[in-house]
Amino acid sequence: MDQQKQTIIGFRPKRKVLKRDTDMFQRTYRLQINNTLRTVYVLGTELKINLDSCAPSQSKFFSVKCSPNVQCEIVSRVQARSSLALPQPLGKNTVLLISMEAASLQPDDSKLSVRFYKDKTEILGSALLHLTAVEISLDVDADRDGVVEKNNPNKASWKWGPKGHGAILLVNCDSESAHFKQVDTENESVSKVSDLKDMSKMILRTSGPSELPEGYKLSLHISQTDAERVRIFRSRTSRQAESSLKNMLLGFFQKEYPLVLDKKQLANEVPYQGGRNELVFYVEGLHFPDKDFDGLLMINLSLLEPVGEGFPETPIFTDKVMFRVAPWVMTPNTLKPLEVFVCSTRDNTDFLEGIEKLVRKSGLKLKKCYEYMNRGDRWMQDELEFGYIDSPHQRFPVVLDSPRNGDLGDFPYDQLLGPDFGYVTRYASRREVSSLDSFGNLEVSPPVTVNGKNYPLGRIIIGVAFPTAAHGRNMTKVVQDFLWAQKVQEPIALYSDWLLVGHVDEFMSFVPAPDRKGFRLLLASPDAAYTVFRTLQIKGYGNAKMFPGKAEQVSVDEILNDKMFEAENNYVQSCIDWNRDLLKKELALDEEDIIDLPVLFKVVADENRAVAFYPDMVNMLVLGNNLGIPKPFGPQVNGKCVLETEVRSLLEPLGLDCSFIDDFTAYHKLLGEVHCGSNVLREPFAFKWWNLEL
Amino acid sequence: MDQQKQTIIGFRPKRKVLKRDTDMFQRTYRLQINNTLRTVYVLGTELKINLDSCAPSQSKFFSVKCSPNVQCEIVSRVQARSSLALPQPLGKNTVLLISMEAASLQPDDSKLSVRFYKDKTEILGSALLHLTAVEISLDVDADRDGVVEKNNPNKASWKWGPKGHGAILLVNCDSESAHFKQVDTENESVSKVSDLKDMSKMILRTSGPSELPEGYKLSLHISQTDAERVRIFRSRTSRQAESSLKNMLLGFFQKEYPLVLDKKQLANEVPYQGGRNELVFYVEGLHFPDKDFDGLLMINLSLLEPVGEGFPETPIFTDKVMFRVAPWVMTPNTLKPLEVFVCSTRDNTDFLEGIEKLVRKSGLKLKKCYEYMNRGDRWMQDELEFGYIDSPHQRFPVVLDSPRNGDLGDFPYDQLLGPDFGYVTRYASRREVSSLDSFGNLEVSPPVTVNGKNYPLGRIIIGVAFPTAAHGRNMTKVVQDFLWAQKVQEPIALYSDWLLVGHVDEFMSFVPAPDRKGFRLLLASPDAAYTVFRTLQIKGYGNAKMFPGKAEQVSVDEILNDKMFEAENNYVQSCIDWNRDLLKKELALDEEDIIDLPVLFKVVADENRAVAFYPDMVNMLVLGNNLGIPKPFGPQVNGKCVLETEVRSLLEPLGLDCSFIDDFTAYHKLLGEVHCGSNVLREPFAFKWWNLEL
Repeated sequence: MDQQKQTIIGFRPKRKVLKRDTDMFQRTYRLQINNTLRTVYVLGTELKINLDSCAPSQSKFFSVKCSPNVQCEIVSRVQARSSLALPQPLGKNTVLLISMEAASLQPDDSKLSVRFYKDKTEILGSALLHLTAVEISLDVDADRDGVVEKNNPNKASWKWGPKGHGAILLVNCDSESAHFKQVDTENESVSKVSDLKDMSKMILRTSGPSELPEGYKLSLHISQTDAERVRIFRSRTSRQAESSLKNMLLGFFQKEYPLVLDKKQLANEVPYQGGRNELVFYVEGLHFPDKDFDGLLMINLSLLEPVGEGFPETPIFTDKVMFRVAPWVMTPNTLKPLEVFVCSTRDNTDFLEGIEKLVRKSGLKLKKCYEYMNRGDRWMQDELEFGYIDSPHQRFPVVLDSPRNGDLGDFPYDQLLGPDFGYVTRYASRREVSSLDSFGNLEVSPPVTVNGKNYPLGRIIIGVAFPTAAHGRNMTKVVQDFLWAQKVQEPIALYSDWLLVGHVDEFMSFVPAPDRKGFRLLLASPDAAYTVFRTLQIKGYGNAKMFPGKAEQVSVDEILNDKMFEAENNYVQSCIDWNRDLLKKELALDEEDIIDLPVLFKVVADENRAVAFYPDMVNMLVLGNNLGIPKPFGPQVNGKCVLETEVRSLLEPLGLDCSFIDDFTAYHKLLGEVHCGSNVLREPFAFKWWNLEL
Repeated sequence: MDQQKQTIIGFRPKRKVLKRDTDMFQRTYRLQINNTLRTVYVLGTELKINLDSCAPSQSKFFSVKCSPNVQCEIVSRVQARSSLALPQPLGKNTVLLISMEAASLQPDDSKLSVRFYKDKTEILGSALLHLTAVEISLDVDADRDGVVEKNNPNKASWKWGPKGHGAILLVNCDSESAHFKQVDTENESVSKVSDLKDMSKMILRTSGPSELPEGYKLSLHISQTDAERVRIFRSRTSRQAESSLKNMLLGFFQKEYPLVLDKKQLANEVPYQGGRNELVFYVEGLHFPDKDFDGLLMINLSLLEPVGEGFPETPIFTDKVMFRVAPWVMTPNTLKPLEVFVCSTRDNTDFLEGIEKLVRKSGLKLKKCYEYMNRGDRWMQDELEFGYIDSPHQRFPVVLDSPRNGDLGDFPYDQLLGPDFGYVTRYASRREVSSLDSFGNLEVSPPVTVNGKNYPLGRIIIGVAFPTAAHGRNMTKVVQDFLWAQKVQEPIALYSDWLLVGHVDEFMSFVPAPDRKGFRLLLASPDAAYTVFRTLQIKGYGNAKMFPGKAEQVSVDEILNDKMFEAENNYVQSCIDWNRDLLKKELALDEEDIIDLPVLFKVVADENRAVAFYPDMVNMLVLGNNLGIPKPFGPQVNGKCVLETEVRSLLEPLGLDCSFIDDFTAYHKLLGEVHCGSNVLREPFAFKWWNLEL
């Protein structure tokens, strides 16, 4: 002990101790008289030794000596003297607080000795402690800048908002292989280096001697619940490097990136590498937030101390990090389109031509799903919804596959899933699935602010039955639960069950606008249509024909004379008005934010539910300022369709370009229109979901 | 229209309209030219009529007349003139806002007419609207004072805290019948008037004419998800009164309190009673908050309007109220005891005598569970946990039955469940259940404040495996999920799997204290025990015997010479120290808040897990200041047990009275002690859980 220099620190006022209790992890440690113990000290913690409880009986004084690297403080009701190397009065609850300032270079390279006295000279006994200081930090990108910083003080919690913190995890739901498709979460190993980009880096930073004292171990562990939702790989350490020949063999990546934790292994020893070192882990999200999962996950790293031959090790230090799994985010019509998807069928050549022209005009490429894949199912809108997932380190589109599962059912998995294109679905029994589960019944608004609450990613809109209705149809619960659990685009449930098909896109759409809130809500309106038709009649065009030249041809006078038809449209208008009032409230819209497009409906007798009478113009394809609107085939005045003229007069002042697309035979007569028959992959929001204030 | 007086209100600045949009429900309404419509107006809402969209073409002016009860305002970009009865310029988007100030006495007793002009004299057409004003309010006790106030503006949301709001629902988990037992939630009808006290009152207040206009209906409705968690009854209306003879027959209560909504019926028409009237509903909670249920429920009341022959009615007004299901709350040792429960077995006469004396001293009554019921299972602590549920209108104790299900398994249901004594359990498969599911492993701390966060109901404490351990045992997931979901006593998971039995009550307890935080944490401490034994040896009592006179008798010297035994106790101390440090952090305790009681353990070879060497004094029964402590049978000095003396010296200064109870043969040797063999029903907290700031 000759080389040891004493460290002297006086009595500390109690307040400060109390404060430190909550800031710093204090480990209770016990000395043994006439015995040499050893322990590992973790930088940033304190060892708290109650001297009174280990002192020989009759002890009245004590003294302390320690290596220069060791800091000693005394907390006691008795005033400490100037030098701890001189005998100090031993009081009840005299506590020694030990800390160290730098990592050890060798195991056991620091020492602490405490001597107990009966009086100031008679020694009753002494206790010796060998100390090894290590620095341990399990690190993540808690400040969300794409870089794993060191020991962020907020790494173990998660807070929303621009001033928030907490790391982010993606569900690894794309397929690294474009050919042998499989959602990557199904693969229990890392198959390609590119797969690592979809995972979140986590770094174990350690500093200390080349080896830990014998029997000490580092263990990474997760709870049973979290283990269902996460998988952790690590990079191979240099010590475990294998020959390059071996690396070229099958199983390369399994060896290069061994699986550390999953639901079969909740805890695993991880190597301590010695010196100043970093061990990189790759954390893979397996499940999206859902009804029973708030999206938060905790990962723990513990230092285990050997207690004695035959006993389990006990943890002496635990570091924790938290992740939130990124939600699935939908993209409204106001976001920039990237790709347009439609089905090619035997009978939709005219429609395809119209769409192709519109898509070309918008500077985009049309992606056709051919008949061998669509098997005649043309409802591209209904089988899937495009969205994306985002993190500071990676972002890619993710298709939500509807439980509808028509003949297009395989398209999302077989044609869309691929490298950096994710896939997610929810399973429901055939019995539970109704027409309301098609994703023409799943839309999202542009960003809005409602009663001071910001929705910078807009709000999801779905259609359900009004609960007072007997035998109402609903969107299936598993999908609704999924949508609500994403949290960042709080859904609104509209009433769409009054429609035979039952989709919200049959009566509403959003288009971009240069003024006000940046968009307009378009609503189908029988009332607006009646105004157009009555004006036509008053102006002397009562003889003009709806559907001119078609078998369905009918005059304006005939339409206006049909009292039953008028009653049906009054009913439809009342249903739309209920939704109109709800949307105004939930999206904080003014009258000026809404445009009523003239659309008539008819009520199908058996079902007592409505379908569009002529092509439903609100069911449009929105590509920036270019709109693909179902051609209504309305009455003509001076060779121009009055319905088209009316719609142009409503939309063109907003800088919108209206293309009317003939979908009459191939879509309208099958109870869908342009929007139902198309889908658009859009750019993600510039706004980052983690900056939401939730 | 002669009797009608016009109401004149000038142009309103736009800002005010915008504000009202968010405050008041605005219903879009449409007039029809040359047609008389009728509608029901709900007080507190506005009808919003776009005049331009219903005006005959070429209309340039309009005028409005209305009954005195009707308020008309114009929102228009064009300045309104002084009297609406004079022709006003009709602009694009000229909107009429209609409101009414009092309920109608007769159906259709108010009228509104709008006339449209080509110029100021040539009339193009007019539209007439008959109005019936009703007042509708679905009310709950949203201010939590035990009384259902009228139309609380916050009734549709829920906020924690003394300044919070939102109604409260109890799970009706007691049994109105003491003899034919059944948890009341299992009963789909109201069997006794007393059962209504366990439900929350909800009142539908209406005011209006004696009948609604033909075809209008009131409908109460809930979502499918909520319907699993709630049942709604209503009181019989006076019109439905039946003869007193009939009432005396079977089914009286089913008729008196008909079931309105449950999972089989999500929507139901409720009677409109006419005049100024109240219809009382009784809302029954069916499920506690849990992993998939945050405790919140929404109940809706809609007014349905007939649209026309053959069409479904459409909702024109919806009122909503929200409830939160009260959580299950545990009671710490610091709360006043009410009743003490123990088992009577063939071999525990001495123990029962000791307990009886202590219970009598505390002024309480002892409740014995006899052998016909306990079938030899004496672990009263392990089979159940007492707690309570609380609301502004009702409160009662609720026993949580452990999935342990030993021979005492039927006791909670058969003996405790009854009128105003609730029952709840969670089911787990036999395979999942371990010793850690016994409720000796479920405790709760007294109130604490941690880093500024208040826990006025304390924090739940459970024991689990340390996850780095292979083959660790855990408390079963369904119980853990239930405990976490209650939210008001945020749990702490300690490490108890190092014990053979594995319960937190084997190493910790709380006792009341007059100072500091109002309590002390007691921890079992081998270190403290060694200090006692070493001091004894130094003082020359090395020959004194542990377990004097018993077959197990062993001297102080022998104990201190056993190096293996010392290593075992060092290991145990390190396990307890891990928990000590965790408790200090999670409960913000100082050293001065903790008392170490001298207890030695031994490690059972096969299992490598610990059991108490002598009766585990921390495993005590706490009845106010009277403690029932396992008699340790320690070495004697001057005829006094040194262990008892030591414990008295630690606890008596706090005003605590120590009774040492002999549980050696009947409990200690079976691996349990006094606490394991008893249970205490305590008074609820004075603090109301809904006043928590969460």
